[in-house]
Amino acid sequence: MTFQEQARAAKAASTVLRRLDRAGKDAALAAMAVRLRESTGEVLAANAADLERGRASGMTEGLQDRLRLTAERVEGMAAGLESLAALGDPIGEVVRGWNTDQGVRIEQVRVPLGVIGIIYEARPNVTADAAGICLKSGNASLLRGSSSALESNRAVIRALRSGLVDAGQPADAVNLVEGGHEATQEMMGARGLVDLLIPRGGAGLINAVVSGSSVPVIETGTGNCHLVVDSSADLDMAEAIVLNAKTQRPSVCNALETVLVLRDVAESAVPRLVGALTDAGVTVHGDERSVALDAAVVPAGPGEYDAEYLSMDLAMKVVDDLPAALEHIAEHSSGHSETIVTGSLEAARTFQESVDAAAVLVNCSSRFVDGGEFGFGAEIGISTQKMHARGPMGLTEMTSTSYRLVGTGQVRLG
Amino acid sequence: MTFQEQARAAKAASTVLRRLDRAGKDAALAAMAVRLRESTGEVLAANAADLERGRASGMTEGLQDRLRLTAERVEGMAAGLESLAALGDPIGEVVRGWNTDQGVRIEQVRVPLGVIGIIYEARPNVTADAAGICLKSGNASLLRGSSSALESNRAVIRALRSGLVDAGQPADAVNLVEGGHEATQEMMGARGLVDLLIPRGGAGLINAVVSGSSVPVIETGTGNCHLVVDSSADLDMAEAIVLNAKTQRPSVCNALETVLVLRDVAESAVPRLVGALTDAGVTVHGDERSVALDAAVVPAGPGEYDAEYLSMDLAMKVVDDLPAALEHIAEHSSGHSETIVTGSLEAARTFQESVDAAAVLVNCSSRFVDGGEFGFGAEIGISTQKMHARGPMGLTEMTSTSYRLVGTGQVRLG
Repeated sequence: MTFQEQARAAKAASTVLRRLDRAGKDAALAAMAVRLRESTGEVLAANAADLERGRASGMTEGLQDRLRLTAERVEGMAAGLESLAALGDPIGEVVRGWNTDQGVRIEQVRVPLGVIGIIYEARPNVTADAAGICLKSGNASLLRGSSSALESNRAVIRALRSGLVDAGQPADAVNLVEGGHEATQEMMGARGLVDLLIPRGGAGLINAVVSGSSVPVIETGTGNCHLVVDSSADLDMAEAIVLNAKTQRPSVCNALETVLVLRDVAESAVPRLVGALTDAGVTVHGDERSVALDAAVVPAGPGEYDAEYLSMDLAMKVVDDLPAALEHIAEHSSGHSETIVTGSLEAARTFQESVDAAAVLVNCSSRFVDGGEFGFGAEIGISTQKMHARGPMGLTEMTSTSYRLVGTGQVRLG
Repeated sequence: MTFQEQARAAKAASTVLRRLDRAGKDAALAAMAVRLRESTGEVLAANAADLERGRASGMTEGLQDRLRLTAERVEGMAAGLESLAALGDPIGEVVRGWNTDQGVRIEQVRVPLGVIGIIYEARPNVTADAAGICLKSGNASLLRGSSSALESNRAVIRALRSGLVDAGQPADAVNLVEGGHEATQEMMGARGLVDLLIPRGGAGLINAVVSGSSVPVIETGTGNCHLVVDSSADLDMAEAIVLNAKTQRPSVCNALETVLVLRDVAESAVPRLVGALTDAGVTVHGDERSVALDAAVVPAGPGEYDAEYLSMDLAMKVVDDLPAALEHIAEHSSGHSETIVTGSLEAARTFQESVDAAAVLVNCSSRFVDGGEFGFGAEIGISTQKMHARGPMGLTEMTSTSYRLVGTGQVRLG
């Protein structure tokens, strides 16, 4: 089957999903979970083959770990599909509605996008997760997994499609896109057949998709997250938030990367934060002023304020005042999550209104910027772009809207 | 000034607009209107020069008419800026808000996009209009008008920028992008500097921008609008709506292009609709079955169900039933506005839930699908795409959102 044929089949399936009610979608998700559990042995055998191939071609231990499935992970994928069934249906929600002067009733109603393409790297658990989120939001999916996980993805998709058929729904609601680099290229050019592309992976993948795609893309980007210690900050609070945001899970996009300390609290704040961070195993890289205040600070090299460490490293800088902190953030932010710790209402308001990011926080940890913590129940990624969806994306963000007008014969007069 | 310098200046201005309150924006719009009125003579002289150049290079009468400004048209542009001042401020609106389990307060708040680029064809009145809508929504604008309107646009922009300075705001909030084809190319590649591109013009322009741009684009596309005459339709109503949707203003995107008549009412409906349309000066192009029912119907050529006539022509087709009508629409629709005339609640619901378009109408004219008729007060175009904005776009659609979190020291536990 060519990609075009596959995309057309997905589009045809999407017209069925468009009108499927919640009970129908939830029954399909339950049936997909049943088939996935039944296929555990098959999925693990396929995964073992992928891992064997990976080892033979010199795949790193880290990548192997991302690729590896276990019975528990397969059970987690099935449970994930069931938990989607427990979430409300985003489709049909009336976003707003009113009557016009002439008495035409207008409702803006949430509808599915149609066909969503997802391009992702090694983890095969994304396959079930993404298929489920698309289905629950009434969309067909074209899933382009990594070639290194091909056998695992095939086995998972086979199970999911059997579940769809069991539930009386079209198997083509969920599709694995195979083929080399050309398949990705075809996806990116399939405007009119594919309604949205979401790349999930490293910066290289995301940039390639953003610059090469004529299909609309949502960027789930990188997080170079800052925290500002304001002059009026409670330093106990600052220390607790910095430690949590940096060390609770350093490898994720909402982890803290840079602390900016205002000059007039630097003398007390820098040694205290550096001490706590060092005790926790974090290496602090700083500018001259922070190095001068604490000998444990390693001088920061060029470019260190722009990169995500995603490790137990943190950049620190002493800035003159809040405007200087805002300027640093405007220059270096990736638009993910930016935090201030402050006791000042004015500083909090200035910060939240000035910073251009998906999330702007006062006195809490950037680790809260996450679909689960937001209570969305499901998350397809965190958008760092401004169009359509910004911040954690749940089911609602996988929808469009349509205006429905109902009249009694009205025609336009002027 | 290079395009990059200009875009950077616009971005700097956008950081001022981001925090400007409603009073500040409205005062700027008022001052822009004052300066534009004062510059009427200068603007008309510049326009005369553009027209002269156009005539010399063989510009068609129609294009000259679109390019031509009069004292009344300049007054209309100034009044348009004043009417924007009368509209509410979309910025700061809380879209939704809640407290998390741990007591962190989350608000999703409307914020400006930043810098909006608009690429448009001959009409110089779009210049003031677009600049005003961007400003009111807190965005800086990069306006790329047609080279044939260059002198007119320069004069308008000069007036608008003087008004901004009078009001104490940065002149770089409004910018005219000059330079040849390369300038358009640079705009399309300026990801990170330009947040959104809106092409306003013919299909050729729109397709070139959509396929060539790495900056997010909103398509304000074409409208191949259908109307279905259901078996249970009130034929008086169908006739009135068809006439209005086709003839009230045939050249616009929400005008009717194709009528689909269900077989079991065709014998009465076709001659009646064709008679009324012909009397109104419309040429009806039809399939074999409609030709057989009324000799005034001209046989439709290949491709006539796909093109927008934008003229006093209409395509007609007799279809077997509602599913056949839905299939025809799915194949030929441009996703703008689709209508059914019906007395059946079931047919109305099936139609509105099945058709994938920006607007889906029951028993009223597609001419209502318009920002003015919707009560938006201002319109930057009608989006026929599904991402970010779909249907008529007003001030709200020129915004993004940001999540604002306020805590009292909370950190993430699990």
